Amino acid sequence: MKDYCFGIDIGGTTVKCGLFRTNGDLVDKWEIPTRTEDAGKNILPDIAAAVKAKMSEKNLTADDVEGVGVGVPGPVRHGKVPVAVNLHWGETDIVGILGGLTGLRVCAGNDANVAALGEMWKGGAEGCSDVIVVTLGTGVGGGIIVDGKLVEGAHGAGGEIGHGHATDELAEPCNCGNTGCLEQVASATGIVRVAKDELTKHPEIRTALKDDGGLSAKAVFDAYKTGDDLAEIIVNRFAKYLGAMLGAYACVTDPEIIVIGGGVSKAGEPLIDIVTRYYKEFAFSACKNTPIVLARLGNDAGIYGSAKLVLNA
Amino acid sequence: MKDYCFGIDIGGTTVKCGLFRTNGDLVDKWEIPTRTEDAGKNILPDIAAAVKAKMSEKNLTADDVEGVGVGVPGPVRHGKVPVAVNLHWGETDIVGILGGLTGLRVCAGNDANVAALGEMWKGGAEGCSDVIVVTLGTGVGGGIIVDGKLVEGAHGAGGEIGHGHATDELAEPCNCGNTGCLEQVASATGIVRVAKDELTKHPEIRTALKDDGGLSAKAVFDAYKTGDDLAEIIVNRFAKYLGAMLGAYACVTDPEIIVIGGGVSKAGEPLIDIVTRYYKEFAFSACKNTPIVLARLGNDAGIYGSAKLVLNA
Repeated sequence: MKDYCFGIDIGGTTVKCGLFRTNGDLVDKWEIPTRTEDAGKNILPDIAAAVKAKMSEKNLTADDVEGVGVGVPGPVRHGKVPVAVNLHWGETDIVGILGGLTGLRVCAGNDANVAALGEMWKGGAEGCSDVIVVTLGTGVGGGIIVDGKLVEGAHGAGGEIGHGHATDELAEPCNCGNTGCLEQVASATGIVRVAKDELTKHPEIRTALKDDGGLSAKAVFDAYKTGDDLAEIIVNRFAKYLGAMLGAYACVTDPEIIVIGGGVSKAGEPLIDIVTRYYKEFAFSACKNTPIVLARLGNDAGIYGSAKLVLNA
Repeated sequence: MKDYCFGIDIGGTTVKCGLFRTNGDLVDKWEIPTRTEDAGKNILPDIAAAVKAKMSEKNLTADDVEGVGVGVPGPVRHGKVPVAVNLHWGETDIVGILGGLTGLRVCAGNDANVAALGEMWKGGAEGCSDVIVVTLGTGVGGGIIVDGKLVEGAHGAGGEIGHGHATDELAEPCNCGNTGCLEQVASATGIVRVAKDELTKHPEIRTALKDDGGLSAKAVFDAYKTGDDLAEIIVNRFAKYLGAMLGAYACVTDPEIIVIGGGVSKAGEPLIDIVTRYYKEFAFSACKNTPIVLARLGNDAGIYGSAKLVLNA
């Protein structure tokens, strides 16, 4: 094992870059813009230039660098991306192209999966090798780790756990085209959907929540922490959906630990407590005591995980 | 790789034994009784004697035999069983004991998981390496295969997919203690439960089905195949539960193929067709075309899979 590796997390507006020691210490991190114009043809050359500039700055040669890991907002199968809408990419052979440009070994994975690997390496699941990470953000994403390795899946859809069927109660479709997905009731926007529904159902309940422009998952959890009765109903409904689905997912891979990340997880321990309560109700007996914890790496999970992807390969 | 291996499937009344060539050809199979008396202390010695007798009969020495794989009706973690109720076993170090008795390398796994591995090796999922197998029998069991390997899980509960929460409509608890498990509506007994419920709800529908001693999953599917209106309702309800849960499970590991086995699968292609229809409704877009197929090895899946367990190790 060489001493250094790079972890790159490509987002729709910026590319996060990290230089790591292979023991997991973050040496340096920085960002470059994601140039999506011209079908995103500059993105990989820009990353290659950034990597080479950093190597030069730190006096590193290829002999010092184990490789470059890359997280991509889209499905990845064997180092190739069939399509990444946010980057304006069609089929893109990341490993081939970036490997050619840098002369380094390149590994690539889906960004949500890679972030999960980061949480296993140096985050909320540090020291574990069987993990489910669920990310509650604008959508619900995640990553499944079995025996220390990401489960990529036959179609690059391993860990797409926002799209399990959570409820028959919705009429409107999910972005994925199905109806009743976990994402529709457990993402930040999903929690707002549940909140609006409960506000309509319970005009009689006094609450600080209002269906105006300010209704957000954060507002719901803030109200919940003050003991707001309607927020209690909303958060319990959300947590029941999420707890039941995590229970179902846990009986697939039976993880050592479940990590919750994403913007919604900023609600902190009260979120963990209520989700754990419902998880215990629905999880299989052998899995009931599986700890549910907060993610720890925040926006850096992607660079940690993509670096780890190289070390795992 | 040596030329031969043994696959042993321990059941509550008989132990199925198979001698295989390591290319997967079944050379011989036979059964011995499972002696559960005296806390099941004879079971492993009986198996050791059977293996040694077969080696002697076939003129095989330890140099010819790769090892002995064993499937056990209970959780298995790193070759040890914490408890196996049907065998009257407390904590049992199968690998240590049977390895000592035979002088051969021993691997052990949960029987449902091991049967799944058999279906991957030489059954319905032959040639695949990412598989979900669901077994619809008295209960609902299964096995998860990622990258050609069984997912054992942190508590030996990988593949306990009968215990995902499928419905809020039930009041009575599952054998596992939870309420609304897939097993309660999709096992042979679960289908009877659904059938009784629909018979009560729809006295106005003409049907060949009667809630007498003869009501069974087989009777339901037989009636379904004749176009019986109530059987149509029952089978659709069952298939919706199962299809939705398989869709959720598929977004965890994104398998290449899903295999349905167990007694209920004797209903054949009409079962596959209706479950596939609901699966497609609920599965994530990337996974919608994942084929759902029948298991092929029947009761031999366990001996095939336990043999494969040794070859995988």
